[in-house]
Amino acid sequence: MRHPGIQFDYPSWVTRMLDWERRYESDEDKMRLAIAVARRNVLEDTGGPFGAAIFEQADGRLVSVGMNVVVPQNNCILHGEIVAFMMAQARLGSYRLAGPDMPAHELATSCDPCAMCLGATLWSGVRRVICGAQREDAEQMQFDEGPVFPESYAYLERRGIEFKKGVCRKEAADVLDLYVRRNGIVYNG
Amino acid sequence: MRHPGIQFDYPSWVTRMLDWERRYESDEDKMRLAIAVARRNVLEDTGGPFGAAIFEQADGRLVSVGMNVVVPQNNCILHGEIVAFMMAQARLGSYRLAGPDMPAHELATSCDPCAMCLGATLWSGVRRVICGAQREDAEQMQFDEGPVFPESYAYLERRGIEFKKGVCRKEAADVLDLYVRRNGIVYNG
Repeated sequence: MRHPGIQFDYPSWVTRMLDWERRYESDEDKMRLAIAVARRNVLEDTGGPFGAAIFEQADGRLVSVGMNVVVPQNNCILHGEIVAFMMAQARLGSYRLAGPDMPAHELATSCDPCAMCLGATLWSGVRRVICGAQREDAEQMQFDEGPVFPESYAYLERRGIEFKKGVCRKEAADVLDLYVRRNGIVYNG
Repeated sequence: MRHPGIQFDYPSWVTRMLDWERRYESDEDKMRLAIAVARRNVLEDTGGPFGAAIFEQADGRLVSVGMNVVVPQNNCILHGEIVAFMMAQARLGSYRLAGPDMPAHELATSCDPCAMCLGATLWSGVRRVICGAQREDAEQMQFDEGPVFPESYAYLERRGIEFKKGVCRKEAADVLDLYVRRNGIVYNG
């Protein structure tokens, strides 16, 4: 059998879509980018209906985006948040988006993080998380979120991570609906 | 700024160390491989003191190994279990290690999975997990495991995933101790 390594990059539409110089000021601005990435990922058939983006908190500078590429990459780990964390850390050359010489970072994610991504959020070093669609919206489409409990959020909050939920929820949930209407694979249902 | 993609492979000692034709029969056999990978990763200075391996459940055939490469790869996601899942799925060309045309798979991990890896276990498709060192052993070395609760395990068990804890616990915990004695970075402490 082959023993291939792991290699992936952004889908090619990312470069065409993003203006890396733009500043994202409000939570809604940041969320609308995460949602736009999710929507584009569905429309281009490059993965699932979940998008994310990481920003410098102080000035709204975009550091990375992420999109769910589980099915095309044959890799159950590559949720939108995970790709955003990996890409940000590769760009900054640091396994933690925090530290004395680093500005504070925040994550916008088009849907409440699953158990894996919530754990990853703790290790990532981001200080704040803006969430769009809610767990119930994903579950309504048969996407499982895994073992996430109120105590899970409380654990991260005790570590200094702030959460803002339900930002542009309807717009974010609409992308889940779009995916299902296009007969997208709900692979963990 | 650069926008690098993601690329990584096994450390070079993996090929020299492993006999891919060997069958791993008992839980202790499987765990000792995960522990040997963790130990070698420490001794070769290629990452943290955590190792994992994935096997076909019926015949003990080795499918992949994984080791914590967070620090050398600048990537907070690359815990031992995550690398093992990614490598197994890349090898099999499937985002799920389960399905009608696929044998059942199991994971051996040298330490109880953190919150991220426990979530990933649910998405990976493995049916059984063999754990070595326990959460308390990792915490004693200041490694944080994140929001994992008894209900987290219960959630996965309800999805048909079986856990066997504390297999070769002392040998597994010894690798954590070895890492700390060599002044390894406890990066999420």
